[in-house]
Amino acid sequence: MHVSDAPVGSRELTTERRKPAAAAAARSFPLRYAGRTVIALGAHPDDIELGVGGSIAALSAAGTRVVMAICSVPADYETRVAEAGAAAAILGAELRVLMPGGCRRIEDIKTYQLVGLLDEMVRDLRPAAILTHGPTDFHRDHVAVFNACLSTQRLQPFDFYSYLPTMCRPVPVPFQPRAYIDISGTIDRKMAAIAAHHSQFYSRGITYEMYRDFARINGRMVGVEYAEGLDISRIIFS
Amino acid sequence: MHVSDAPVGSRELTTERRKPAAAAAARSFPLRYAGRTVIALGAHPDDIELGVGGSIAALSAAGTRVVMAICSVPADYETRVAEAGAAAAILGAELRVLMPGGCRRIEDIKTYQLVGLLDEMVRDLRPAAILTHGPTDFHRDHVAVFNACLSTQRLQPFDFYSYLPTMCRPVPVPFQPRAYIDISGTIDRKMAAIAAHHSQFYSRGITYEMYRDFARINGRMVGVEYAEGLDISRIIFS
Amino acid sequence: MHVSDAPVGSRELTTERRKPAAAAAARSFPLRYAGRTVIALGAHPDDIELGVGGSIAALSAAGTRVVMAICSVPADYETRVAEAGAAAAILGAELRVLMPGGCRRIEDIKTYQLVGLLDEMVRDLRPAAILTHGPTDFHRDHVAVFNACLSTQRLQPFDFYSYLPTMCRPVPVPFQPRAYIDISGTIDRKMAAIAAHHSQFYSRGITYEMYRDFARINGRMVGVEYAEGLDISRIIFS
Amino acid sequence: MHVSDAPVGSRELTTERRKPAAAAAARSFPLRYAGRTVIALGAHPDDIELGVGGSIAALSAAGTRVVMAICSVPADYETRVAEAGAAAAILGAELRVLMPGGCRRIEDIKTYQLVGLLDEMVRDLRPAAILTHGPTDFHRDHVAVFNACLSTQRLQPFDFYSYLPTMCRPVPVPFQPRAYIDISGTIDRKMAAIAAHHSQFYSRGITYEMYRDFARINGRMVGVEYAEGLDISRIIFS
Amino acid sequence: MHVSDAPVGSRELTTERRKPAAAAAARSFPLRYAGRTVIALGAHPDDIELGVGGSIAALSAAGTRVVMAICSVPADYETRVAEAGAAAAILGAELRVLMPGGCRRIEDIKTYQLVGLLDEMVRDLRPAAILTHGPTDFHRDHVAVFNACLSTQRLQPFDFYSYLPTMCRPVPVPFQPRAYIDISGTIDRKMAAIAAHHSQFYSRGITYEMYRDFARINGRMVGVEYAEGLDISRIIFS
Amino acid sequence: MHVSDAPVGSRELTTERRKPAAAAAARSFPLRYAGRTVIALGAHPDDIELGVGGSIAALSAAGTRVVMAICSVPADYETRVAEAGAAAAILGAELRVLMPGGCRRIEDIKTYQLVGLLDEMVRDLRPAAILTHGPTDFHRDHVAVFNACLSTQRLQPFDFYSYLPTMCRPVPVPFQPRAYIDISGTIDRKMAAIAAHHSQFYSRGITYEMYRDFARINGRMVGVEYAEGLDISRIIFS
Repeated sequence: MHVSDAPVGSRELTTERRKPAAAAAARSFPLRYAGRTVIALGAHPDDIELGVGGSIAALSAAGTRVVMAICSVPADYETRVAEAGAAAAILGAELRVLMPGGCRRIEDIKTYQLVGLLDEMVRDLRPAAILTHGPTDFHRDHVAVFNACLSTQRLQPFDFYSYLPTMCRPVPVPFQPRAYIDISGTIDRKMAAIAAHHSQFYSRGITYEMYRDFARINGRMVGVEYAEGLDISRIIFS
Repeated sequence: MHVSDAPVGSRELTTERRKPAAAAAARSFPLRYAGRTVIALGAHPDDIELGVGGSIAALSAAGTRVVMAICSVPADYETRVAEAGAAAAILGAELRVLMPGGCRRIEDIKTYQLVGLLDEMVRDLRPAAILTHGPTDFHRDHVAVFNACLSTQRLQPFDFYSYLPTMCRPVPVPFQPRAYIDISGTIDRKMAAIAAHHSQFYSRGITYEMYRDFARINGRMVGVEYAEGLDISRIIFS
Repeated sequence: MHVSDAPVGSRELTTERRKPAAAAAARSFPLRYAGRTVIALGAHPDDIELGVGGSIAALSAAGTRVVMAICSVPADYETRVAEAGAAAAILGAELRVLMPGGCRRIEDIKTYQLVGLLDEMVRDLRPAAILTHGPTDFHRDHVAVFNACLSTQRLQPFDFYSYLPTMCRPVPVPFQPRAYIDISGTIDRKMAAIAAHHSQFYSRGITYEMYRDFARINGRMVGVEYAEGLDISRIIFS
Repeated sequence: MHVSDAPVGSRELTTERRKPAAAAAARSFPLRYAGRTVIALGAHPDDIELGVGGSIAALSAAGTRVVMAICSVPADYETRVAEAGAAAAILGAELRVLMPGGCRRIEDIKTYQLVGLLDEMVRDLRPAAILTHGPTDFHRDHVAVFNACLSTQRLQPFDFYSYLPTMCRPVPVPFQPRAYIDISGTIDRKMAAIAAHHSQFYSRGITYEMYRDFARINGRMVGVEYAEGLDISRIIFS
Repeated sequence: MHVSDAPVGSRELTTERRKPAAAAAARSFPLRYAGRTVIALGAHPDDIELGVGGSIAALSAAGTRVVMAICSVPADYETRVAEAGAAAAILGAELRVLMPGGCRRIEDIKTYQLVGLLDEMVRDLRPAAILTHGPTDFHRDHVAVFNACLSTQRLQPFDFYSYLPTMCRPVPVPFQPRAYIDISGTIDRKMAAIAAHHSQFYSRGITYEMYRDFARINGRMVGVEYAEGLDISRIIFS
Repeated sequence: MHVSDAPVGSRELTTERRKPAAAAAARSFPLRYAGRTVIALGAHPDDIELGVGGSIAALSAAGTRVVMAICSVPADYETRVAEAGAAAAILGAELRVLMPGGCRRIEDIKTYQLVGLLDEMVRDLRPAAILTHGPTDFHRDHVAVFNACLSTQRLQPFDFYSYLPTMCRPVPVPFQPRAYIDISGTIDRKMAAIAAHHSQFYSRGITYEMYRDFARINGRMVGVEYAEGLDISRIIFS
């Protein structure tokens, strides 16, 4: 299974630590967006926390304005908005509900209206990045949000990332990250933000420890304790 | 993130247990191959254990003859064959080295010669199934073994499965299982068989706990503690 | 075009027959589900028969309860339900119409409502497997049914198979089977069940012999006279 | 399963026949290449006949020079070249062996040398089209020939088609045609050309009727009795 | 970066010119459809011109009836229909609006109704080819039109091509042509037809010179000055 | 073709310019790697300049050490190394030849030896990023280099990018960028570096202006004059 027979010394594992702080900063995800706005977008409450809770906590800690935008709340409006608000507070982000005021379904509006809601938010916030669902998700609403986001790109270039398929009950679908973000320092806040969705997990006897396993495996891929893995549709460098 | 708003009671989680033993047996992976021969095929020592060690232990416990076939040993021949033999013993399987007698590289022979080695083994063992690497693996030798196995299919139909990319140092590549095999009862033997490759892991300070995480996540996908996930090229039902 | 130059003797072709009955049973598709329930799901009448009529006949003959579930009947409600009932009787299966009582279109309801209909059926029947359309089908309703089935998986793990794109007038789309099921013993019942859809084929002068050709080619792939080929999203082994 | 409920009259099925001869000629595959040269390229003897025997017969009948180019003969050189010559004569084509003079393997030369052989032939023949294996074939030699052909394109633009995976013993691999060529008039010559490979089929008890089934299914897709289906890498229109 | 070291003489670059006129005609896109009808189909005004304006001009100049069919006009009905009519006149084509009489959205009707509109047009015009959007487009309406066209194929076989994702503000999505059509003689008419959509480009300060760059790059791929690149779902040869 | 009907004002086009310098720096490709080492890797001379010449010039101008590593020189060793050296000087980078001392082919060594050469370089340079060929390239040597790079990742995590298929004579293959790097300030140096390969372009009458067209189209995708587009296998954020 090994690729080379030559023994690989411990040098590989320790060199990274000796990098000067400046160089390390240059590859920081939070610093890339410091002083700017990032939109974390999800179809429903708890999607964002499951997908990118650790990255959001890191971004807001570094001075990025993060808007957690939920498209719709399909049931238990008051409870779920309150839970989402608590989770956003834990992560240091603002909460928005794009279809507010009561229980709504994404399918209640047309695709072009959903694009319109995103357009409005993009014109308002001028985001440097949007983090949302990906095209291989098993949930049609999640795919619809990704597709609407594709269209919104015509207004303005922004970094466009997708997070893994989110689910409280597991449904296997393919997902392969391209961007790895170290969340070793914020994994606990991520888990706490998920836990804030008490009505979805604790009160139904559903565990979410699987998301810690995902983060540990992603971390192992890049030599840190915990990482979130994102797919990339577009990233823009000057 | 939920798909339906209706609460899903605990009935879902308990029904499976009440199935009669006969019905449960019908979906058993080991019983599917009981009394027959299964080939677990890997490019190099330790690949097979990382990929399907738990399934092999279950198969052999149920009376299946399992042949663990290693294509070549690229270095430390004596040590690595001894380790592979110890691992095979732990899993209850037979060990074969297809390019025996000393350190060899798969690239030392032509593709059609590798197909020839597999053909010879298939003619000898008449396997009901072959479990080997998949086409998306990051290691060229692994892909070469998969490709040779594709050709060997012309001799005789057999169930043809691929296991996840195996690595002692992680390299992310896409892999999405289609078959899930409960290894809750054999996870410890799997980990012990991996540990038998002392020269690859312990003596180089490399951990393999990541493979327990993979098994836990795969188990979660089908409601058991630990599972191995395989891709399927072909499965044959009468 | 051959892979190996060595002549391959007739031994390959005869060995399979000498297998003891017990071993053969272990790889039987009907026996895998004996005593349990399988849902064959189609968007409209005749889809199921074209896709998996032979497998259904084999399943029901072996004691599996098979429910043929049709999502909607878009026209000629009485005629088409009667034909579907006749076909189900030929195959030994029960018929259900998920949107009953008159002509309906799948697009008449929202995606989450379609998921809700499937959820209800899954809660009721606790299926060991669902066989339905695949994601590459040329017909949007077929793809919608596949997608809804993806979501229903969150309720309970079940084996999840897709059959080839079904059409009375041919539209070429990609489809590659992974599971092959011997239907040599039930091909005639499959063709009879298709013929029961008199209003779709005979009365419009449309032939369906192409489906016998598909079965013959699939059979050739695994050394039997006729087979149905299914793609696999997930298969679960204990 | 139907897409529209409206009955579709017989008008659809008869209109095509009333087209004037000139219009029909414009969409003719043979006439597209009349007076020019087409290369049918295969890794080994019999590949070309299985893949595009019917199209070759139609091309040569219409005045196209067709060169059937076999890369190598891996065994039984005299016999197989004689059979290939007989098949070429049946189809009205010229035979070339790119690695002539005795049994050779494609892997005996480097990839750039294989590209060199194709380059030489392309410089010599200035083909309007090349028909060869595709990238999803199960046989490594077939894929190698396709890849070499990809590189040869840099010398000169030509129409570049791939035929289905060819095999005397079946190995399922994905293949979806994009171009359909009516071979109703030449199916018998195709079957006769395959039969000329007596050492591969008749003398080993292997049938090739499956290829007639493929042609019938492909024909059904475009409303003719028999068709060959090709994938297209590039087709050039002035 | 070169594939072969051998110098490639100028012979390659000049041979094509010496072909007799008859042979050249045989590979002509316009002559393939002369005397027949081609449908160029787009979701909204200006899509068709951006995608295949050059090919349409060449087709109509050679005597093909080209119908430019626009599914819907989402805003500024009078202005946009007038602009589309002017563009069609420049290209020598007829204009049709499938959802006429005022501003409409494709999502205002169901998928099966959209299929019905296309079916009606196909029954009326008996097209030899349809050129429309492709499945990877970033705009949901574009994908919906492609999908509806997939279904319409069941009525009658026709050549089925897709053009590149069209956009006035750029959104990157994958697209790889398979058919290249020389539009060196009609590039100016294409650019003029795009310019006719004054309300979309000039009056909003948006340039469309990018489409000239696309045509130049596509031309370079096949050795002409300008080309349009199309993907192919199906092309039918007699 | 537009996604929204609402007119999009000029605000979108001017906002970016008002960003403070600090924020702009955070998304700079050169600053991400300042003070570190980047390897630009190509199979042969001129590949790197065609693929990422503009990015290299920007990186070196910002203080990044860039090593341009050429695997082999297949012909005209002295001339081509001199040209490559001149190009590297123009771009401010160091030149390395991995198989030095005379004309060599990548196929002269085994895959594991090529991996070994890359491993050695990675151990020596500890790169923050590697930019090389991609997996869809039409040239087998290019794909081999990409594959070897995949394996080298096991030594150490690094950002891993692929550039578009490079060719002096065009061969169309799919490539879709995910990272866009503004090279408006270095496009002229890129073109000059390509021109330094006098023996490949000028002296054979081959133009390379197509690469300026690629850069202009990529620039248009993100609102700058010229950009290079890269695919991303992995990017690592702290």
